Amino acid sequence: MLKRIGVLTGGGDCPGLNAVIRAVTKSALRAGLEVVGIEDGFGGLIRQQFRPLNLAAVSGILPKGGTILGTTNRDNPFKYPVLVNGEKKYVDMSQTILDNLAVAGIDALVVIGGDGSLSIARELHNKGLRVVGVPKTIDNDLSATDITFGFDTALHTATEALDKLHTTAESHHRVMILEVMGRYAGWIALESGVAGGADVILIPEIEFQIENVVKKIEERCQQGKKFSIIVVAEGAKLGENLVVQKVIEDSGDPIRLGGIGQRLADELERRINLETRVTVLGHLQRGGSPTPFDRILGTRYGAAAVEALLEGENGVMVALRTPDIVTVSLAEATGVLKRVNPEHDLVQAAKAIGISFGDE
Amino acid sequence: MLKRIGVLTGGGDCPGLNAVIRAVTKSALRAGLEVVGIEDGFGGLIRQQFRPLNLAAVSGILPKGGTILGTTNRDNPFKYPVLVNGEKKYVDMSQTILDNLAVAGIDALVVIGGDGSLSIARELHNKGLRVVGVPKTIDNDLSATDITFGFDTALHTATEALDKLHTTAESHHRVMILEVMGRYAGWIALESGVAGGADVILIPEIEFQIENVVKKIEERCQQGKKFSIIVVAEGAKLGENLVVQKVIEDSGDPIRLGGIGQRLADELERRINLETRVTVLGHLQRGGSPTPFDRILGTRYGAAAVEALLEGENGVMVALRTPDIVTVSLAEATGVLKRVNPEHDLVQAAKAIGISFGDE
Amino acid sequence: MLKRIGVLTGGGDCPGLNAVIRAVTKSALRAGLEVVGIEDGFGGLIRQQFRPLNLAAVSGILPKGGTILGTTNRDNPFKYPVLVNGEKKYVDMSQTILDNLAVAGIDALVVIGGDGSLSIARELHNKGLRVVGVPKTIDNDLSATDITFGFDTALHTATEALDKLHTTAESHHRVMILEVMGRYAGWIALESGVAGGADVILIPEIEFQIENVVKKIEERCQQGKKFSIIVVAEGAKLGENLVVQKVIEDSGDPIRLGGIGQRLADELERRINLETRVTVLGHLQRGGSPTPFDRILGTRYGAAAVEALLEGENGVMVALRTPDIVTVSLAEATGVLKRVNPEHDLVQAAKAIGISFGDE
Amino acid sequence: MLKRIGVLTGGGDCPGLNAVIRAVTKSALRAGLEVVGIEDGFGGLIRQQFRPLNLAAVSGILPKGGTILGTTNRDNPFKYPVLVNGEKKYVDMSQTILDNLAVAGIDALVVIGGDGSLSIARELHNKGLRVVGVPKTIDNDLSATDITFGFDTALHTATEALDKLHTTAESHHRVMILEVMGRYAGWIALESGVAGGADVILIPEIEFQIENVVKKIEERCQQGKKFSIIVVAEGAKLGENLVVQKVIEDSGDPIRLGGIGQRLADELERRINLETRVTVLGHLQRGGSPTPFDRILGTRYGAAAVEALLEGENGVMVALRTPDIVTVSLAEATGVLKRVNPEHDLVQAAKAIGISFGDE
Repeated sequence: MLKRIGVLTGGGDCPGLNAVIRAVTKSALRAGLEVVGIEDGFGGLIRQQFRPLNLAAVSGILPKGGTILGTTNRDNPFKYPVLVNGEKKYVDMSQTILDNLAVAGIDALVVIGGDGSLSIARELHNKGLRVVGVPKTIDNDLSATDITFGFDTALHTATEALDKLHTTAESHHRVMILEVMGRYAGWIALESGVAGGADVILIPEIEFQIENVVKKIEERCQQGKKFSIIVVAEGAKLGENLVVQKVIEDSGDPIRLGGIGQRLADELERRINLETRVTVLGHLQRGGSPTPFDRILGTRYGAAAVEALLEGENGVMVALRTPDIVTVSLAEATGVLKRVNPEHDLVQAAKAIGISFGDE
Repeated sequence: MLKRIGVLTGGGDCPGLNAVIRAVTKSALRAGLEVVGIEDGFGGLIRQQFRPLNLAAVSGILPKGGTILGTTNRDNPFKYPVLVNGEKKYVDMSQTILDNLAVAGIDALVVIGGDGSLSIARELHNKGLRVVGVPKTIDNDLSATDITFGFDTALHTATEALDKLHTTAESHHRVMILEVMGRYAGWIALESGVAGGADVILIPEIEFQIENVVKKIEERCQQGKKFSIIVVAEGAKLGENLVVQKVIEDSGDPIRLGGIGQRLADELERRINLETRVTVLGHLQRGGSPTPFDRILGTRYGAAAVEALLEGENGVMVALRTPDIVTVSLAEATGVLKRVNPEHDLVQAAKAIGISFGDE
Repeated sequence: MLKRIGVLTGGGDCPGLNAVIRAVTKSALRAGLEVVGIEDGFGGLIRQQFRPLNLAAVSGILPKGGTILGTTNRDNPFKYPVLVNGEKKYVDMSQTILDNLAVAGIDALVVIGGDGSLSIARELHNKGLRVVGVPKTIDNDLSATDITFGFDTALHTATEALDKLHTTAESHHRVMILEVMGRYAGWIALESGVAGGADVILIPEIEFQIENVVKKIEERCQQGKKFSIIVVAEGAKLGENLVVQKVIEDSGDPIRLGGIGQRLADELERRINLETRVTVLGHLQRGGSPTPFDRILGTRYGAAAVEALLEGENGVMVALRTPDIVTVSLAEATGVLKRVNPEHDLVQAAKAIGISFGDE
Repeated sequence: MLKRIGVLTGGGDCPGLNAVIRAVTKSALRAGLEVVGIEDGFGGLIRQQFRPLNLAAVSGILPKGGTILGTTNRDNPFKYPVLVNGEKKYVDMSQTILDNLAVAGIDALVVIGGDGSLSIARELHNKGLRVVGVPKTIDNDLSATDITFGFDTALHTATEALDKLHTTAESHHRVMILEVMGRYAGWIALESGVAGGADVILIPEIEFQIENVVKKIEERCQQGKKFSIIVVAEGAKLGENLVVQKVIEDSGDPIRLGGIGQRLADELERRINLETRVTVLGHLQRGGSPTPFDRILGTRYGAAAVEALLEGENGVMVALRTPDIVTVSLAEATGVLKRVNPEHDLVQAAKAIGISFGDE
């Protein structure tokens, strides 16, 4: 029997989280359930940071970015840092979580998070937790869902930035470089590059040669276009310079491994006679009021997660298979990255209109 | 053999048209073709309003709304108005069009338009024209494609309007009504209503009773919410008041048949003790810089249309079957409206979080 | 001695009200005062709708439109409607207000409102109330202050609408008319018209002839511009058609007296061979997140109002005399409308670049 | 006699430049003058990059950022780099400019630029050039004018960024730092900080101690606010770390001397137990469609510059003395920086509502 459910957000923040929380709360209340908000991700489960969610608590949050529940990129409950005799040790707190939930009378959990958080949810499920996951990844790199919320808003922010850089590039005859999120998957760079009229798009999935970038810029100069726009994903590889190992799972910090933009600029300035400038978009991509698409998808996910729980599903994640919302098992849903296929229709369309990916 | 292609836009204007024109031009030029822009829709084919399109002509148009080629809701070439002895007569000018194209050396045509324009394209194709269609419908009511460009931008405009009306509604304890486009299909109302946090959504596909709307507003008052937001599609039916016949096919004018918003307000003010105000969004929904989604989809369509021509396809329309761009025959693509199914997952999600459609 | 102050918002809502409420609360708390929010304008003083305002209550409200306190265009305390034996009578409730304030220990009041609300504040001051006014007028028609908050946001909304209508006008070769707020003063029409690239601006202060508007449109056609943009203030006068008497002082409803846009369109369509379309901006102008200018001015006003009270000022209104915030007596501040002077530098600049006001 | 005038833009690009160019062109044409656009600043005068400007050339540019004429931060004509026997030498090209103008029949020049460009204009005027200046400074640091165009748009961009960072700060309990333009004058930081709800504002004009910043953050934690927002001008001084000499006059590059944001973050992370993240806004502040205010002010400036030339004025600059546009001599107008006075009313209002400037 389901009487009370909990909801938490884990990993980096993302526009649309509040839409999910609101839809979970509203639809659960209408179904006669009670709803408990868990603060600050999985850590809140350990530290018993619980608060009841009613209609008033979720009123007016739909257009707000971030998460009213708080979140964190840290606090893996299977390796939770505790001080023992002044020394930091990592211990497994999963049983504490199950106990805390039992004490609070929380029968099931909706976990909103990325690959990292959903993997934790899967492990907790294996230990007996009743759970439904909601996918969250601003990079759009989860393979089990067509797309998830947050990406469209990030795409808007990046496209708007390209629109802004365009006029400076043109006025000053400069090469303007925009570095965007995407360590392993170049979706934001690819889509914002097409939408923002970029001349060159550099992504982790397509290895590029600096000479090809130079060639494209020079080709434009010969056509009378004395400026160029480059969008580069933070994980794009300049020659042998490989991206370092992914250290923290599901981290929300977009610039930790950055620097490709500046290095690219340095290389280009040595090769061409145009001023080159870099903008690192960074945290701006995570903020802002969610776009309609993200609000709608978040709302659908939230309602679907509650419906899944009501129908007895467990250990699953809701996912978009256009135009439907479906459920997939957490085991399938986690651990597989969705990267840009160089043969993807959008890459081909981009090449057809003359955008260079630096690979030829 | 394909040497020179033409491109035209027909029907109401729509954000993303320029993205298509740009992609058609850029990809055709790269494939070694010449491109001719036809001004002001099918009328331009009759009046020989042709101009060459080169890279410079399409530079900088990606973020611009509308169409650089001009368009019109009139000028059906099969019923083209001409003055004969001072009297207006409607004549078939289709042969003139084929002749004009032959004289100009235009081997094939890309027609960007809605159901009306694509039907004309189909008929011209039946008379021998080599043509590929690109679907355009801001209302999202073409059944052969998942979605088309322009809709996402209109959705943004409507959602932004709802966000704005929200604060006035709340500050003044009013019922605010927003009337949006949608004579036969309520997609804009449905999606903007969910995204904008509406309390009531009224669409042509779901018959509503004014009493159910009143009930929802009163239910909110009892919960301490002394305001409500209603979004109504222009084609929603208030009781026996039916929408008049669709007179002009593919018309771009969103308010000709309007008035449901004001009539709804009058009915509500007679029944409840709250001030009620109406905003008719009208032409604002057609304007503005296209969203990234619409720019990308327009670009994909344009590149795909040229690719289809190059591969010898004819009499087809490009369409989105997520995540792919496909082609469908114009015969199949036209004449079937895509309307909101009341059982649609999004309608159900909306009801689950408490939005009323006035049907219960 | 000042220990506890109240704050209320009166008249139509307006972006920036929350910035004032926040600044009043934050600066008063820092000065050691208590702050009480009065709900729903002067009516809240009569009905004792009081609630304490602390830091948490004003957290996060700076970017929000509207007023967290609620407001109304009705409820004049000197003519307050009460039911006596089932009959509506209007009675003077001013003494009740003074009594309620005394009971609640509220020593002084900050009244945020337009000419109507400030006139009430002045009368209450004459009866002994300690009060400082903060000017609010989205139309920018208060003569005692250079400008006030809300106007800049409304100007943005109107300019953005003109940008959107521009592409439709150009694509369809239409005359697009935008009707904006401004019954007695044409500031929004004038400034948005210049910012939005309008061809014709029609305001209450400059009488226009329809023939001059036609002349301007035809002049443009001859220059190859087959479209025109007209912005018209709701109070602009078409020939002998005079605006009806201002009935409700300080009303927040922008469309009650509307209709000039549609009548203008009808007149133009009879005279020129171009399609003409009207958009009435209406309530959208009052909504939205305030612009930086409006947030800053609201913050300065709020801080200045508390400072004035602390320094013993009374019966005054804060006002912007660029670049300073000053105080002026409520007696001076109310009752005088600031209208556009046809000799104003901005009108002259507009004429110099070819914008028509229909007067020549 | 005035028959033909030239117009050029110098220094860093800035939203509103096109509004000035458009107003100069439109009002000069209406006054019967011819207009010549000079490309790429003063360098274009030397290299004879002239092109005629007619109505078509300035059509549709009002909402566009940047400058259609091109600009550069280099090319001082009094120290113009030329290659002599393969060696770079700096020569005085001012006479060449006067000769080129005479040959082209250009009687007078409108120079749109910042302190650097206007100083060059002044020197050229001293050598006989008929010139009117239009002030441009996105930093708002010209003392001879109340404000100039570009600043309001930059303020919007910075405020929007703060709105976006706010939700991440709150969701993750972080300190978010935004570094904005302002090497010598902190106007953007000050105004965006107040508008964006910053907790700490650090500007070049007010020396700050890191301890005071820490104190403010800790004070907020004690009030239950586990996050803080800091906006810092690029020229703010952290302890003894002084800004290096201004090398290039009137440079448009906002990040060359940057780094204060990152150094501040490093210092804070050593002192407090909160994650700290930095965003450098950089070139985004120069881009984008100008706000209504900037479009209007640019239009007024452009019309006023032509009017001044027509009335025989020479060696002057147009300036805003609210609400009027006046002219001041170039000699007066250049060389004096307008910095934030710590006693400024806005600084005091900010302190009154609890914003820290790190000085106490």
